[in-house]
Amino acid sequence: MLKVGIVGATGYTGVELVRLLKTHQHVKLHAMSSRSETGTLVSDYFRNLEGHCDLKFTALDSLDLQECDIIFFATPHGVAMDRAPALLALGKKIIDLSADFRIQDVQLFKKWYGIEHSCPDLLKTAVYGLPEHNRARIKNASLIANPGCYPTIIGLGLTPFLKANVIDPKSLIADCKSGVSGAGRKAELGMIYCEVADSFKAYGVKGHRHHPEVTQELQKINADSKLTFMPHLVPMNRGMFATLYAKLNQDISLEKLQQILVNTYQNEPFIKILPPNSQPETRFVRGSNQIQYSINIHSDQLVILGAQDNLVKGAAGQAIQNMNIMCDFPENAGLELIGIIP
Amino acid sequence: MLKVGIVGATGYTGVELVRLLKTHQHVKLHAMSSRSETGTLVSDYFRNLEGHCDLKFTALDSLDLQECDIIFFATPHGVAMDRAPALLALGKKIIDLSADFRIQDVQLFKKWYGIEHSCPDLLKTAVYGLPEHNRARIKNASLIANPGCYPTIIGLGLTPFLKANVIDPKSLIADCKSGVSGAGRKAELGMIYCEVADSFKAYGVKGHRHHPEVTQELQKINADSKLTFMPHLVPMNRGMFATLYAKLNQDISLEKLQQILVNTYQNEPFIKILPPNSQPETRFVRGSNQIQYSINIHSDQLVILGAQDNLVKGAAGQAIQNMNIMCDFPENAGLELIGIIP
Amino acid sequence: MLKVGIVGATGYTGVELVRLLKTHQHVKLHAMSSRSETGTLVSDYFRNLEGHCDLKFTALDSLDLQECDIIFFATPHGVAMDRAPALLALGKKIIDLSADFRIQDVQLFKKWYGIEHSCPDLLKTAVYGLPEHNRARIKNASLIANPGCYPTIIGLGLTPFLKANVIDPKSLIADCKSGVSGAGRKAELGMIYCEVADSFKAYGVKGHRHHPEVTQELQKINADSKLTFMPHLVPMNRGMFATLYAKLNQDISLEKLQQILVNTYQNEPFIKILPPNSQPETRFVRGSNQIQYSINIHSDQLVILGAQDNLVKGAAGQAIQNMNIMCDFPENAGLELIGIIP
Amino acid sequence: MLKVGIVGATGYTGVELVRLLKTHQHVKLHAMSSRSETGTLVSDYFRNLEGHCDLKFTALDSLDLQECDIIFFATPHGVAMDRAPALLALGKKIIDLSADFRIQDVQLFKKWYGIEHSCPDLLKTAVYGLPEHNRARIKNASLIANPGCYPTIIGLGLTPFLKANVIDPKSLIADCKSGVSGAGRKAELGMIYCEVADSFKAYGVKGHRHHPEVTQELQKINADSKLTFMPHLVPMNRGMFATLYAKLNQDISLEKLQQILVNTYQNEPFIKILPPNSQPETRFVRGSNQIQYSINIHSDQLVILGAQDNLVKGAAGQAIQNMNIMCDFPENAGLELIGIIP
Repeated sequence: MLKVGIVGATGYTGVELVRLLKTHQHVKLHAMSSRSETGTLVSDYFRNLEGHCDLKFTALDSLDLQECDIIFFATPHGVAMDRAPALLALGKKIIDLSADFRIQDVQLFKKWYGIEHSCPDLLKTAVYGLPEHNRARIKNASLIANPGCYPTIIGLGLTPFLKANVIDPKSLIADCKSGVSGAGRKAELGMIYCEVADSFKAYGVKGHRHHPEVTQELQKINADSKLTFMPHLVPMNRGMFATLYAKLNQDISLEKLQQILVNTYQNEPFIKILPPNSQPETRFVRGSNQIQYSINIHSDQLVILGAQDNLVKGAAGQAIQNMNIMCDFPENAGLELIGIIP
Repeated sequence: MLKVGIVGATGYTGVELVRLLKTHQHVKLHAMSSRSETGTLVSDYFRNLEGHCDLKFTALDSLDLQECDIIFFATPHGVAMDRAPALLALGKKIIDLSADFRIQDVQLFKKWYGIEHSCPDLLKTAVYGLPEHNRARIKNASLIANPGCYPTIIGLGLTPFLKANVIDPKSLIADCKSGVSGAGRKAELGMIYCEVADSFKAYGVKGHRHHPEVTQELQKINADSKLTFMPHLVPMNRGMFATLYAKLNQDISLEKLQQILVNTYQNEPFIKILPPNSQPETRFVRGSNQIQYSINIHSDQLVILGAQDNLVKGAAGQAIQNMNIMCDFPENAGLELIGIIP
Repeated sequence: MLKVGIVGATGYTGVELVRLLKTHQHVKLHAMSSRSETGTLVSDYFRNLEGHCDLKFTALDSLDLQECDIIFFATPHGVAMDRAPALLALGKKIIDLSADFRIQDVQLFKKWYGIEHSCPDLLKTAVYGLPEHNRARIKNASLIANPGCYPTIIGLGLTPFLKANVIDPKSLIADCKSGVSGAGRKAELGMIYCEVADSFKAYGVKGHRHHPEVTQELQKINADSKLTFMPHLVPMNRGMFATLYAKLNQDISLEKLQQILVNTYQNEPFIKILPPNSQPETRFVRGSNQIQYSINIHSDQLVILGAQDNLVKGAAGQAIQNMNIMCDFPENAGLELIGIIP
Repeated sequence: MLKVGIVGATGYTGVELVRLLKTHQHVKLHAMSSRSETGTLVSDYFRNLEGHCDLKFTALDSLDLQECDIIFFATPHGVAMDRAPALLALGKKIIDLSADFRIQDVQLFKKWYGIEHSCPDLLKTAVYGLPEHNRARIKNASLIANPGCYPTIIGLGLTPFLKANVIDPKSLIADCKSGVSGAGRKAELGMIYCEVADSFKAYGVKGHRHHPEVTQELQKINADSKLTFMPHLVPMNRGMFATLYAKLNQDISLEKLQQILVNTYQNEPFIKILPPNSQPETRFVRGSNQIQYSINIHSDQLVILGAQDNLVKGAAGQAIQNMNIMCDFPENAGLELIGIIP
């Protein structure tokens, strides 16, 4: 049993890692760090862990953490790049759920995240952890940049059609809708219940940090890719929905488009292509690592609908999927949970 | 005081009409009809009306209804067109909140609503009740087709730019999000709390009845207009949000686009253009007749954001606005309520 | 038109005062103060006020505020008692929505609110603003202690039966449920959407500040009154529900108990006693100043159910009702709005 | 691997059984019956099962069902008692999640459920499946009456103190709050989103079917037990909260009361007693089989707070726990899932 540590374990992504890892046969949770809660029993802090976890939150420099084989960073940006060099030198595997190693262009990183990248050399060895695109490279990586939730659902939805060259790469629009947990777990006025419940809004309208990330990945597929990205906030705890628009560049049937999608993902354990006339809903993937997609044509527009759980395939689940690949575990270890309805 | 009647008063639109009309100085609610609840005290059925309304639900053929000067139909499609001819012959004014008189093409109507139109002649005299477009014609009308909620927010958002000829009319996309009351008040499995709460989905993906309606109106502005329309369901009671995409057909600044919008609506009492850097949220128009819009540019895409209350400007409020214009009342009579937050 | 000022106008109670006062014929909103937002246009801060309010937030010492005839304090405790003496000396009328003047025993006040009372003399002249109990005294008051939301719904529910001497005053239990706006508008982790939505909990379990207040008022009716009070948090924006249990001290029919309640409140404009077999729901009083009660007997237990809007009858609405009484306005001025459903 | 069948598998309890059984090592789901959906692929109906279940819904008389070793009835009342005799004769084990075998008094059953009991003889052999009370009898049972959600949380909360004889058995009050899934999955007007969301109400005020059931069980502990029971509806999908009041009949410390509770349940895998100053919240048991309790004293009132997931410990989870005991599986098989937050 390999030992796992979680840095920044008081957020929603951290506690979700614990929930999923509990069902994992090949690793054992060994340490959870938190600056603010050092010394607190984890199950006193997250009482859903009552009876499931007897760890205490430790400091980031604790011995416990150093004893781990694999370390997940579920921290704000800036922490992972600060700690990664030393940990990698000790032979640890790192999966960073923050943005520190996602954007290869350090200028772009600085522009969007407001800080200088502290280890551009490491950045070059980091692998973008989208298993459906980079499985082979992930296998040999020591440092994984776990993708953002939006880039995951947008990238996996558009890529098959970009590759098949059936859509205009300059026409891409991603109208995305996220549950509130996507904004993290922090005390901000705009996030309190009464500012969010029974309402709907767009946010990040002038530019969202996931935009350069998803553009970088789409342009790897087709250098001409240009995306209009508009994220919205849904009054729900979890779940992310993407409505993706792309202009078809040819006369092509829905059947053929469906075939492209099905062929691309037929061996992927976590991508489900719905049959024609079925459409995704976020509740059907709540708590599971699946993305469900459907496609539709409206005259010359291809409309791709996708749903995922922003905390699972959009964060913790994908991180575990990456770990499984890196460590040669079955790819679905710890990820077989059925979505919970209602 | 003119006498007002409401046909089909057990739905959300019906009770919303009552709420608004209560603050109206120039009309008096005289009759409310309901097939299923005939004889029931209205305030026993909707207990928010306790102390505000001493009417009983009457049958559709009741004398009470015939004594009214103005009649609102808040019924499923098919009822208003059945009753309108006789009532108009008696000199009544009719405002139909259903779809019966919205679509001028009777073949198209039949295709989407599944029934033959029973009075195509009347259809020609019906006025589409979007005051910001048709105020003069509404003034002289006896029969108003009150617009659908989606056509209202989409039409008012896109029209100024279509008219100014700054967007490609073939590039229009309306990604819309509606609160659940938009689906009406009926016992359907898909509408029960646990199927809707904490989830998000698209619906009407293969085609929504508001699509031909809004297309008809947009094509009056520019005959080349072509719209991709995708409605979604938000787990909230009220509120409708529109994210409208249109390709700019020229190099034009945000300031100039903002000016187009501001100029168009500066004298409109219920359209508010937000200053740059402010964006609409449905909570700010909850219970009010306002639509709030903002605009943004993402490279060559114009992105218009709009929020309205689907039951007010999207239904009952707009109906009262139409009545005010028809009857020469102040246009904001009964419509001055401030949105309720939270 | 008298001039009204609101101190602490960035909270939910403050903006609710604005919403209601807009429909008031006899007063004009003249000033709104906020420490943190001085200089900001109020309608830029609360965009539901767009087109309804052209004031800017002013400082607490501004001339604007001094020009007001009536001043509402919608502030945290400690502010009103600090400012009241000077304002009263200038002849202003004050309605304090905070707790500063609710508890007559200064030791008890200090115990629960953690601060010394700064003007115990004023405390003696303050009138507890529960119109149904103290209308005559309110009429002549200059300083009103506007009741807490829980004490309002509990006090009005239990008092008729305590007065009629049909329940054991030592047996009282108030199991209360509040929407989240009851906790105010502040950035706290426990109040963010994902900590509250789709969950239910008790809070203030070891003791809630409204307990001494409601006990003080109940003991004015019967000195032996003893109340077990348990508040809970409901994932909804507005609304407060009370389930009140009291042991009947005699064999008495439901009809007679209903009569006691009906007789007590028959002339009260904002208390509605539901007919047998009807039960209150918070949605029917959303946005209105009504409380709706029903009663039931379970063997020797009287069970009173009540629903109010915590921000209206539980705060801003009751404050306006108090102003109306003080100023000889019609008691329902500004308070005739129908509850908004859904 | 024993074969499991689920009758009535289109409800929330049915699909929850599937979710939990998926993680069970000792049984295999073999058949799911549904009258209305016979022939439909289960994963087309509940798309959270996509990739997890390749069964089709079968008819109640299908061979598939007859091949099962254990059969869960997740049906409306009346179905299980109709089918149980024949199935038991075939040697099947039956766990009935409906009310058919819960109430031993057939007159009382008829009064509350409106139908004659069709097999009173079987009723005598049925075991009330509350493992913490009846583990030994469950072990040898063939027919389990799986308890209602309210009786579970009320019964387990009050029993230790009734047994310890520290509370007055005539003073019991259960003020309970349930998520909407407790009402089942059916198309009723009162259950649609807009009638429930952002509101709170009591229901079953004149009498709820779980009242005779929980009274029957409490009176087994102390024949004098008398309970006032008031259920309420919370706008949330899952979760049940109980606030239990009982009068202490002696002067006893919180520590001793806590000890009574801790001693009672120290070996129970699914009952967690929170430390003093911690209080339960339903979100911490969402999706898990735990009940969490805390206790508090308010003068001479004992106040017990409890939280469970109505669909798990309140239904499907407890049913599996019963199966595990009957079949000599580890009691926590299939029930080790961590609660999902947020």
